[in-house]
Amino acid sequence: MSRKSVTAYQQLSDHFQKISHFEHFAALGDWDQATMMPSAGSDNRAAAMAELARHIHELKNAPELTDWFAEAQQQLTQLSKAQQANLREMLWQWHQANCVPAEIVQAKTAAAYRCEHQWCQQRPANDWQGFKHNLQPLLALVKEEAQSRAAASNVTPYDALLARFEPGMTAARLTQIFDHLSQWLPTLIQQICERQPTLKPVDTNIRYPLSRQQDLGREVMQFLGFDFQQGRLDISAHPFCGGVPGDVRLTTRYDEHSFLPALLGIIHETGHASYEQGLPVAWRGQPAGLARSMGIHESQSLFFEMQLAGSAAFIERLYPMLKRHLSCRDSAAELHQQILRVQPGYIRVDADEVTYPCHIMLRFAAEQALLNGSLDLADLPDFWDQQMQQYLGISTKNNYRDGCMQDIHWAVGEFGYFPSYTLGAMYAAQFRFALEKQLGSLDVLLENDRLPEVLSWLQQHIWQQGSLLDTDTLVQQATGEPLNPDYLHRHLRQRYLS
Amino acid sequence: MSRKSVTAYQQLSDHFQKISHFEHFAALGDWDQATMMPSAGSDNRAAAMAELARHIHELKNAPELTDWFAEAQQQLTQLSKAQQANLREMLWQWHQANCVPAEIVQAKTAAAYRCEHQWCQQRPANDWQGFKHNLQPLLALVKEEAQSRAAASNVTPYDALLARFEPGMTAARLTQIFDHLSQWLPTLIQQICERQPTLKPVDTNIRYPLSRQQDLGREVMQFLGFDFQQGRLDISAHPFCGGVPGDVRLTTRYDEHSFLPALLGIIHETGHASYEQGLPVAWRGQPAGLARSMGIHESQSLFFEMQLAGSAAFIERLYPMLKRHLSCRDSAAELHQQILRVQPGYIRVDADEVTYPCHIMLRFAAEQALLNGSLDLADLPDFWDQQMQQYLGISTKNNYRDGCMQDIHWAVGEFGYFPSYTLGAMYAAQFRFALEKQLGSLDVLLENDRLPEVLSWLQQHIWQQGSLLDTDTLVQQATGEPLNPDYLHRHLRQRYLS
Repeated sequence: MSRKSVTAYQQLSDHFQKISHFEHFAALGDWDQATMMPSAGSDNRAAAMAELARHIHELKNAPELTDWFAEAQQQLTQLSKAQQANLREMLWQWHQANCVPAEIVQAKTAAAYRCEHQWCQQRPANDWQGFKHNLQPLLALVKEEAQSRAAASNVTPYDALLARFEPGMTAARLTQIFDHLSQWLPTLIQQICERQPTLKPVDTNIRYPLSRQQDLGREVMQFLGFDFQQGRLDISAHPFCGGVPGDVRLTTRYDEHSFLPALLGIIHETGHASYEQGLPVAWRGQPAGLARSMGIHESQSLFFEMQLAGSAAFIERLYPMLKRHLSCRDSAAELHQQILRVQPGYIRVDADEVTYPCHIMLRFAAEQALLNGSLDLADLPDFWDQQMQQYLGISTKNNYRDGCMQDIHWAVGEFGYFPSYTLGAMYAAQFRFALEKQLGSLDVLLENDRLPEVLSWLQQHIWQQGSLLDTDTLVQQATGEPLNPDYLHRHLRQRYLS
Repeated sequence: MSRKSVTAYQQLSDHFQKISHFEHFAALGDWDQATMMPSAGSDNRAAAMAELARHIHELKNAPELTDWFAEAQQQLTQLSKAQQANLREMLWQWHQANCVPAEIVQAKTAAAYRCEHQWCQQRPANDWQGFKHNLQPLLALVKEEAQSRAAASNVTPYDALLARFEPGMTAARLTQIFDHLSQWLPTLIQQICERQPTLKPVDTNIRYPLSRQQDLGREVMQFLGFDFQQGRLDISAHPFCGGVPGDVRLTTRYDEHSFLPALLGIIHETGHASYEQGLPVAWRGQPAGLARSMGIHESQSLFFEMQLAGSAAFIERLYPMLKRHLSCRDSAAELHQQILRVQPGYIRVDADEVTYPCHIMLRFAAEQALLNGSLDLADLPDFWDQQMQQYLGISTKNNYRDGCMQDIHWAVGEFGYFPSYTLGAMYAAQFRFALEKQLGSLDVLLENDRLPEVLSWLQQHIWQQGSLLDTDTLVQQATGEPLNPDYLHRHLRQRYLS
């Protein structure tokens, strides 16, 4: 290895390590804001976070990077495979950070802030006209951003947005995948709904104290392998998994009348957290040490929430913990029935695993059409209503709050994110069948207390890979084939129709 | 005002605002580390904090500051009084940040880290030889640091260290003050000890649950004017007041067998917190908006802990809250007796307000002698023993752990800090008598539920002044005279001998 290339790669590596130290405080600031910060601290925090973001952006656009990247790439073959992957990820981050003109970023930040802020009131008020008024200029800026990104990467504008969350994925490939889904999903939903058992009415008199639910949550997290030396569980209005690898902080919210939502939420976030805790320690602070994509991230939370917690054997294992912490009157089998309840509904975040992809397909179609101009924003509610009727047989006519105004994503200018949710569900199913090929049935593994082997499989094939492989290679190496939506189909038929 | 000077002052002001945004994260990182961070997060946090400190240091040494300061000073008379004060404080911070060569700072940081780390084990093991082995090289580096600071400010090395915590204070003046104290304090201690009432034996069977103590603490904080929209109370191994103005975070630790230590600790930290919450909002993020000095800071915590909580009328007010939260069997009068218990002891942090200054005078003498070389480190234990015998009549022979190894300050290389504690006690007494001149007896004010007027007086004369005045001017304006240790004498005689 020539002296020079070592220097350039090492300089880059040191520089990105430095960036990660500042990102550490951005993660801490976000977590603290959602969990601990008193209300009057918000203005000062917002100013400090903006200053920090500016500094990180400057570091990612440091003029010396151009030469360092050029030098390092000339000596590419003299770097190890892992170093090459790290260099690829550094380049990607650099590229992402400097392909949008600063004035567009600033204008979008301001428009998104206004739109989100007012959306918080407009949504409960069902005020579509007010929301549209703010979303229209934000959408125009998102289009400009997408065009800048597209020009820099020589892809379509929508693909350029998609790539922020799913590097390597394209709208063309997603269209194929969703076409596949839309061929069998509506029929499957109908078949499953016809078979739904009648649930016992909910006893609204029972109270599940928050502190007991929290103790239960902590025990379940430990059962799932979460290391409390390396993380925490707290409360926030919107559950999330934050912090940094080695100090992973997840949150949930509790309802005194119902413990299942918080419990399933904790299991979901523990999937995200396990991925973060399991990322390769040797690559901490380097781009190659980060989680692969939002879809792969979601695959881990959905593996925990759907593949594990959807299994009767898993609920059997959980049941003694549940009885120890809460006065639960339902049997394990009744709880399992509640968890696997399938019912078309308006709200994406409340949807079961069977109807969920419909919410995504609708949004994917709408996003693309809004961006390429084939759908006018004024026509979005009609488009939404029509698609909801087509996929789920329910209407959102005049019900904007439970229709096209329900998500925060567009209100903050995030277009291109939604597909990651369903990609995650598909990856999770595919991982599960690959794992079963090697270890045998997941249900049998859970029945025999062999959960640690399941976690080891994920650790080895997903978590410790970080971003050392691209997504397709990761999936190919873990499962022997590229992304294949058949596995989700197989999983749903097996669980709900057999 | 000329265009140019506006620009230079404004540039400085913007620059220090930026620095304060990064200091925001340093404060958050410190607080989080002590209260929330899981153990495995510490290495990564330490690296991130070091990177942040380096960045703040770079900002404070930015090359453009030299010109900006020169320009701004040329136009000094065209700035408002407050802007002039801010400029003075900016200059002071700049000066402090660049007068010690980087290699000394780095060597000291490393030596202090090692010394503190090992001190944690060496102190309980009473291992003086081991501690001395680490303290010796650290002391040598502190001497170098003091000489660099001294050369830059044209003062003695000890005064240069003192100035970091008490700008404007000198060892000569402190010597005069402490000489004054040492003339009356030993006799006063003897007189007070002879009059001490016999306390009821402590009932060790009573338990005071932590959550109840915490609820009590929060109610007492609110009674003392603490604004929970602008701050929090949490638990940490070592109580402190952290965060930033507008988001002030104080901590305590609880003992299930005894509620007074945590309660008095909370009252003490609420004094610090009230000062921080009361700093001038218009100057937030600017050096003029910071607390004046450690001595003035301590004067506020001691005003709360000693002047307020030492008053029988205050305990009467607290008593109903206490009864509401805890099963306290003592009467208000008995509690008051416990709070005012005076007894010579080994440990500074456990000392009552009467014997406390002895612990400080001893350390002040030792620090100076160690720094000027008139005391060899090997002779410190003997020096300590001799002074403890002289002031308090107790011996620390061979008891290093409760003698010269008890404090963390020297183990982390902080010399020159100790005098601030007793300066704080003296300022607190002086503020109290000044306040009484205007509002009447503090006891009567408390009896008549006029605590808010007391807090307003502090707000007006101390808190909202920030660093707009120098310490002497602040004290002169608040009390009509410079620092006068007679008031502490008067306070102690009045409380314990009348």
